[in-house]
Amino acid sequence: VLRGKAGDVLLLAPRRFLSTTFKASDLQIELNKHLKPKPDFSKLVFGKNFTDHMLTVEWNSEKGWGKPHIKPFQNLSLHPASSALHYSVELFEGMKAFRGSDERIRLFRPMMNMDRMLRSSHRACLPAFDQSELLECIRQLIRVDQDWVPHSNTASLYIRPIFIGTEPSLGVAVSNHALLFVILGPVGPYFTTGSFSPVSLLADPRFVRAWKGGVGYCKVGGNYGPTIYVQTEAAKLGCQQVLWLYGDDHQITEVGTMNIFMFWKDHQGDMELVTPPLNGIILPGVIRQSLLDLARKWGEFKVSERIITMSDLIKGLEEKRVKEVFGSGTACVVCPVDRILYQGKNYHIPTMENGPEMAKRFLKELTDIQYGRIASDWAQAI
Amino acid sequence: VLRGKAGDVLLLAPRRFLSTTFKASDLQIELNKHLKPKPDFSKLVFGKNFTDHMLTVEWNSEKGWGKPHIKPFQNLSLHPASSALHYSVELFEGMKAFRGSDERIRLFRPMMNMDRMLRSSHRACLPAFDQSELLECIRQLIRVDQDWVPHSNTASLYIRPIFIGTEPSLGVAVSNHALLFVILGPVGPYFTTGSFSPVSLLADPRFVRAWKGGVGYCKVGGNYGPTIYVQTEAAKLGCQQVLWLYGDDHQITEVGTMNIFMFWKDHQGDMELVTPPLNGIILPGVIRQSLLDLARKWGEFKVSERIITMSDLIKGLEEKRVKEVFGSGTACVVCPVDRILYQGKNYHIPTMENGPEMAKRFLKELTDIQYGRIASDWAQAI
Repeated sequence: VLRGKAGDVLLLAPRRFLSTTFKASDLQIELNKHLKPKPDFSKLVFGKNFTDHMLTVEWNSEKGWGKPHIKPFQNLSLHPASSALHYSVELFEGMKAFRGSDERIRLFRPMMNMDRMLRSSHRACLPAFDQSELLECIRQLIRVDQDWVPHSNTASLYIRPIFIGTEPSLGVAVSNHALLFVILGPVGPYFTTGSFSPVSLLADPRFVRAWKGGVGYCKVGGNYGPTIYVQTEAAKLGCQQVLWLYGDDHQITEVGTMNIFMFWKDHQGDMELVTPPLNGIILPGVIRQSLLDLARKWGEFKVSERIITMSDLIKGLEEKRVKEVFGSGTACVVCPVDRILYQGKNYHIPTMENGPEMAKRFLKELTDIQYGRIASDWAQAI
Repeated sequence: VLRGKAGDVLLLAPRRFLSTTFKASDLQIELNKHLKPKPDFSKLVFGKNFTDHMLTVEWNSEKGWGKPHIKPFQNLSLHPASSALHYSVELFEGMKAFRGSDERIRLFRPMMNMDRMLRSSHRACLPAFDQSELLECIRQLIRVDQDWVPHSNTASLYIRPIFIGTEPSLGVAVSNHALLFVILGPVGPYFTTGSFSPVSLLADPRFVRAWKGGVGYCKVGGNYGPTIYVQTEAAKLGCQQVLWLYGDDHQITEVGTMNIFMFWKDHQGDMELVTPPLNGIILPGVIRQSLLDLARKWGEFKVSERIITMSDLIKGLEEKRVKEVFGSGTACVVCPVDRILYQGKNYHIPTMENGPEMAKRFLKELTDIQYGRIASDWAQAI
């Protein structure tokens, strides 16, 4: 480069000094001098309480990544033209830290979240980072706020990494400024009805969550905002969540903000655990993958990732082949479904009458791993 | 209500005092004491410069709308859990103010933007407001910053109303806090190639902008962020914008951030101006509607809102029936298209060879109205 033409040097030189990732070893820590009183950990509502600190890392296209900072939890100061606010240049992750009865704090398969975050970032035209470095920064943030991890076998510390475009101009274009930050908050069960009460679903083909050629496989903000209106429509009809359908054959795709599973006797009379495939309109959930991995390890029944339609489900219900339907997600782990309202008719799902044995087994196995009651390399102490 | 049971009063009382809209007569104005130097209005880049003031109005579910404020342009202080940043609870508008040679400043059909903003707000589960009150607040903001409206017959003052969820909690739910604000900036032509240079388009059915059952008809942030990646793919292939296709028959829907029009001789041999219908996946553009209205007033050729497919277009090109293809939007007014890259093949569009007579006529008619050179009730002095 140095021997090239002057023009080449000018073109290449700035890139040579760009940081292609931030590093946990560069962490700048400013401790909060005014710690908040902790809330009653037995009465937590999802997402309402936040800890004393946050992680922030700035990026811009001229200088690359800045140093990561742990600092007092505080409001963000954002330019009013920021691309996250106007064009939804934004993506996030959801993960949890669990305190075991041995007092150790564990994360559950955290690199799956880091990898998915990097994929979302690529799709949003935001810069890459080293996933291990981000995870190490998050570990250090949790250590700073470790008193916020509940001493509980149902509560946990929710971790929200988020990455937003902060480009201060109005063209719809790649952001030259961005901010990655992480906030934490202690959480109880996601659903106010309690962690193992069944939910009812509205399945209305007029509303479509994601589509082929879109970004349904990424955890970007724009996949969530439009669902709120549909959720209010569901509530008006006495349903708690939305069952998202796709296509003229009314494929079952996701439920609320969860992946969906069905445990049933299939057309051949074999017991089968089935969930929709990762065909571009399904979020690749960490719990989804973990249920598939566990079930395949058990080897006791068929495990399938394939398309299920509403008519498959209804035929299975009529022939009494359906045992359980449940959602899966980081917030709830598993969530039984007992009713689906579809085309004006209520379909009872016998999930609760059947235990629900499969949902309970998954919940026990996963929470045993998460809270360190059984050893697994899925649970990583911080 | 006062004679009802105590419970009724408690239930109803708070709602009786909620503001269902803010009012322009409540405007609180704090003038900026440190006015910025104006940029060179002949060298403006879209969306990079902002004026000295902004409008803000806060809303929350307990107290309803607060008073509107005009205050110095400044960063926003946002809770890091704000629903706009995580779940894209956000929507915006784009409009312009034009300074005529008579020195009067005019808005172009502004109530169409106000009405569309209210519809987007409803879909985002953000609160309603009186559209006339917002427009009057915007008028007053422009009056405060009137020196920023360029003395020019091509430049103008871009107006960006935006409404974001500021709910400070992480559940995917209706926001109880929101912020409506308006920023302004002087702008030149949208496309850096100049306002009447033709653009080339990538039409790739692997990427879909909006879909039936989604929110393509609303001006919400989540419709824009995912297009940036596709725009970079287009640029890699030497195209300037994306032509968005839909469905197995590759329907033509929009171009970049614009609506699309074709002027051609149809299958029956009649001259026809055609644009896709408002079927849920098309943004109802103000310029789109204005071109339709003008053409119908002229009554010289067929004017149709109907589906056009890529094969319709290609057949028309092969039979030399296509005269012009152009985009329409607030930023560009009209923008000629001269090439479409589709399934590996470049299709030349003879828009420029044909004048483009229709695009030029629309541009002249609309800019004559916008800059007050001809009288029209579409142009409203502030």
